[in-house]
Amino acid sequence: MYDFAAEPGNNELTVSEGEIIVITNPDVGGGWLEGKNSQGERGLVPTDYVEIITEGAKDGISCGNSLADQAFFDSLSSNIAQTNSAAKSSNQANNTSDPWSSWNVGKSGNWDNGNAVDSWATKPESAAGQRNSASNNWEAAAAFGHPQAYQGPGRKYLTFSADDDDWEDEWDDPKSTSPSYLGYKESEASEAGGVQRGNSRAAAMKLPLNKLPGFAKPGMEQYLLAKQLAKPKEKIPIIIGDYGPMWVYPTSTFDCVVADPKKGSKMYGLKSYIEYQLTCTNTNRSVNHRYKHFDWLYERLLVKFGLAIPIPSLPDKQVTGRFEEEFIKMRMERLQAWMTRMCRHPVVSESEVFQQFLNFRDEKEWKTGKRKAEKDETVGVLIFSTMEPEAPDLDMVEIEQKCDAVGRFTKAMDDGVRELLTVGQEHWKRCTGPLPKEYQKIGKALQSLALVFSTSGYQGESDLNGAITEAGKTYEEIASLVADQPKKDLHFLMETNHEYKGFLGCFPDIIGAHKGAIEKVKESDKLVATSKITPQDKQNMVKRVSTMAYALQAEMNHFHSNRIYDYNSVIRLYLEQQAQFYETIAQKLRQALSRFPVM
Amino acid sequence: MYDFAAEPGNNELTVSEGEIIVITNPDVGGGWLEGKNSQGERGLVPTDYVEIITEGAKDGISCGNSLADQAFFDSLSSNIAQTNSAAKSSNQANNTSDPWSSWNVGKSGNWDNGNAVDSWATKPESAAGQRNSASNNWEAAAAFGHPQAYQGPGRKYLTFSADDDDWEDEWDDPKSTSPSYLGYKESEASEAGGVQRGNSRAAAMKLPLNKLPGFAKPGMEQYLLAKQLAKPKEKIPIIIGDYGPMWVYPTSTFDCVVADPKKGSKMYGLKSYIEYQLTCTNTNRSVNHRYKHFDWLYERLLVKFGLAIPIPSLPDKQVTGRFEEEFIKMRMERLQAWMTRMCRHPVVSESEVFQQFLNFRDEKEWKTGKRKAEKDETVGVLIFSTMEPEAPDLDMVEIEQKCDAVGRFTKAMDDGVRELLTVGQEHWKRCTGPLPKEYQKIGKALQSLALVFSTSGYQGESDLNGAITEAGKTYEEIASLVADQPKKDLHFLMETNHEYKGFLGCFPDIIGAHKGAIEKVKESDKLVATSKITPQDKQNMVKRVSTMAYALQAEMNHFHSNRIYDYNSVIRLYLEQQAQFYETIAQKLRQALSRFPVM
Repeated sequence: MYDFAAEPGNNELTVSEGEIIVITNPDVGGGWLEGKNSQGERGLVPTDYVEIITEGAKDGISCGNSLADQAFFDSLSSNIAQTNSAAKSSNQANNTSDPWSSWNVGKSGNWDNGNAVDSWATKPESAAGQRNSASNNWEAAAAFGHPQAYQGPGRKYLTFSADDDDWEDEWDDPKSTSPSYLGYKESEASEAGGVQRGNSRAAAMKLPLNKLPGFAKPGMEQYLLAKQLAKPKEKIPIIIGDYGPMWVYPTSTFDCVVADPKKGSKMYGLKSYIEYQLTCTNTNRSVNHRYKHFDWLYERLLVKFGLAIPIPSLPDKQVTGRFEEEFIKMRMERLQAWMTRMCRHPVVSESEVFQQFLNFRDEKEWKTGKRKAEKDETVGVLIFSTMEPEAPDLDMVEIEQKCDAVGRFTKAMDDGVRELLTVGQEHWKRCTGPLPKEYQKIGKALQSLALVFSTSGYQGESDLNGAITEAGKTYEEIASLVADQPKKDLHFLMETNHEYKGFLGCFPDIIGAHKGAIEKVKESDKLVATSKITPQDKQNMVKRVSTMAYALQAEMNHFHSNRIYDYNSVIRLYLEQQAQFYETIAQKLRQALSRFPVM
Repeated sequence: MYDFAAEPGNNELTVSEGEIIVITNPDVGGGWLEGKNSQGERGLVPTDYVEIITEGAKDGISCGNSLADQAFFDSLSSNIAQTNSAAKSSNQANNTSDPWSSWNVGKSGNWDNGNAVDSWATKPESAAGQRNSASNNWEAAAAFGHPQAYQGPGRKYLTFSADDDDWEDEWDDPKSTSPSYLGYKESEASEAGGVQRGNSRAAAMKLPLNKLPGFAKPGMEQYLLAKQLAKPKEKIPIIIGDYGPMWVYPTSTFDCVVADPKKGSKMYGLKSYIEYQLTCTNTNRSVNHRYKHFDWLYERLLVKFGLAIPIPSLPDKQVTGRFEEEFIKMRMERLQAWMTRMCRHPVVSESEVFQQFLNFRDEKEWKTGKRKAEKDETVGVLIFSTMEPEAPDLDMVEIEQKCDAVGRFTKAMDDGVRELLTVGQEHWKRCTGPLPKEYQKIGKALQSLALVFSTSGYQGESDLNGAITEAGKTYEEIASLVADQPKKDLHFLMETNHEYKGFLGCFPDIIGAHKGAIEKVKESDKLVATSKITPQDKQNMVKRVSTMAYALQAEMNHFHSNRIYDYNSVIRLYLEQQAQFYETIAQKLRQALSRFPVM
């Protein structure tokens, strides 16, 4: 199905799209099969890369699904394909990849289509469309960036995804990685081509929401209309602080240090991977995790909290060049940033799944915890059932206004962040490309001139020629300073904005859930009138939508306080580094100037 | 023949290329005729712009030549056309516009073509070729530059040349001005298209050399072979100083301040022009001159000293937009630089023609002096007859080596200067174009973000938002600083290099004359053997070539001492301004930084 380039010395077999290989061992484990090509060469091929052709079957069977015990993920997997096409068509219809477009449509009344009673039935489609659109945004967010960030000249990270997994291989779709992963992609690409480029990953991440109990519209119905909500063991209190509703912050906070990437291996050394050490600053204990474990955690957090709390996606996966030093550093840096975000969040960081991820004591405990998390039913809309605001129910008008305000703000900030990223990316390119080249040329031109002057045969100009040569060298140094500077300042500004782009890309889903619930309440009078629900049911609905609104405000207050801190820090850093940079250049120029003879 | 755009309110008539107008008055004076177009509109049109169609004549008659008393210039003018085509074909043959190419050819023995005896006859052609090639270089030198130097965005100086003259209008060829005059032209244009673009002016400047007595090869013969050189009244001593042969520097030097450009008018106010005031720093007396007077002076100096001393060409002529303030300032600045160069030169500044240009007391004295200068016969090669080196004759081997060394140096410096100009031009474009635009965008992006943040409704972030807004404004200020900086530093670096390019472009002619003379001496043995000349004649030749060599060395020593001074000054200025520039930016950034709240 896809081109696959073998890594040398890894017993792998290079295959091309369309090539037919004979499977000699359909499951050597870890998502690999052994095959033989037409030249008789044998080797390992990722099962994801091949379509098994049996007895003239027309339907492609994803080979990764051959592990019998993964029926659950099979369903996810088939759903991915379905969703991708849905996403594409929804995009074609919109003629835009703006994730906010469907929300805007929703705002203008489309959520309801004017069919109050039928809307329970029509919702799934529109919700799916909206969700896919949001997926695109996730992708667009992840795809954004400054391409020269960490890619040395001419260096390329080939795209394939294969051997990082020994379970849940369905999540690895080769399309989900991009050649320009390490930095960010071109903005044009992310604006226009994001869907095709890597939608499958985003879809894979998002779609379980639609399938898992309690998340999709039936979940919404369950949450809003249940006579009595099942009392979950977990409780997420919302208190009213100085700034309004807020999560309860744990008395002691912690961070998690991602460090010490180590190459591990499995399959008797056939396959290798990178394992990161995670150390909690509170316990000082360490656990090891591979990228796919982070990916699993992300998935669980998204399924559980995704309608209440923005869970930004992980840094894109990248397989070839995995052991390339710069790549590892970059991925680690971004995993670190992601983990720090999660640790900073009072709800996420205190959740059982997150704690378990960081604090399991052995493989068995990890596996048990993992299974438990996967069976968690308090996910999707039902997460709101764990929340108990210590405040009176809010008025529906106020709820809707606040929700709209959040939508407007996050949309506007998304625009602002995009603008800054676009400009930053452009500036990055100039600072690492043409500008230093120009300074180099100035340096070289001055040095050539000094060289010519030195052949004049005229006496007493060697001081001048020495000084001009030094001035030329100074401009070459300035060229290096200019080229290196973005790593010292713009990089951080870009990373922070990139992170916020990730957060903001989650809001269409969040706002969508809230607006959906609000619409339900609006329709409820008719349902009461037609005796489909009782007035008490309606009371419950209002209460529960009010809880959702408190949760949204608590989350926004968390978001804002972080945003203020983050932007203050990163712009300060940027200005400080920029000032230092210009001061250094000025110093170098003054030094060069001091070498000139005074005549 | 050419498009001509009327200046409003000037009684002018706009005509297009190919348009036929009826001449109502063929000579209203000053190079203008009155015409009527097909719409019946009447107005003045420069005679240069129209071709008079009479009795089915096929040949275009340059109407500028209609003034009967200008037969002399007519011959020059017709010569221009002839020479242009020669230049073109010589260029096509060389497939390069490098003025140095023919000199290189000469170096490799082509001067002689192996036909020692016949070479007197074959010389004129090759010399003409070489001279045309040199003309191209003059043009290329004048054409070089940074286009955004003084042209505001979108501002265009229409090209035509007409009403600055009331005599010698033949010198004004519309092709000689270029739309991008005010700065410099694109280097590509100067490299590739210089010949076509504006050769005629350079040709007009150069060609008299070929026509006037004593300059062309017959002049060379006259100088080298005359039994007794006519003793000219002028004497140009060459002494041996610490650095070798040198001109005698006058005890008191002077400069000439070009200032106070005033609009004058003639033809009862119909036509207007700019008159500059020139004040000598030694006499403190002032005279007024128009651009065409400078042009006349340049021509006289070139004819008289051009084979001994590089006389750089004047800034290009520019007619439309003449009264535009920036243009006047720029032309004045360049006329000033040119005059200062001339004043600095011990031979040129002391010459009668130059002194007379600065010190005439009334119109009559000026006209008398002018006529006298035009009748001067001590021009071209004959200028060397005025020189008396106080030193023994040089050895022919040494003469040739020194001449070659000068050729190599000036060629190499020409390359170096070109490189710096190319780089500087590129840098100029970036600094005045994309770079400030980018800083502006950064500034705007920061301000938009602050604006979004201010809508969050979250308390206590107004300090941050204020600070981000200020940081954004700082980047807008930086954008202005960046855009304005080249005028403060790069401009001077460019102007100096531009001036030197002008000097260096004169060397192919100078070296050519010297090499031509050296070749004559080499051939002289054969001439003696065939009794065409006497041994005494040969002795005279060696002596006179030795005088030329002393003159070349004296001039080179003058050139080098100026070069060292000029480059030291201008690079110091550049570095100082650059350092200040970066310090200013750093200060502004620190100020912006100080506004951020410390969290």
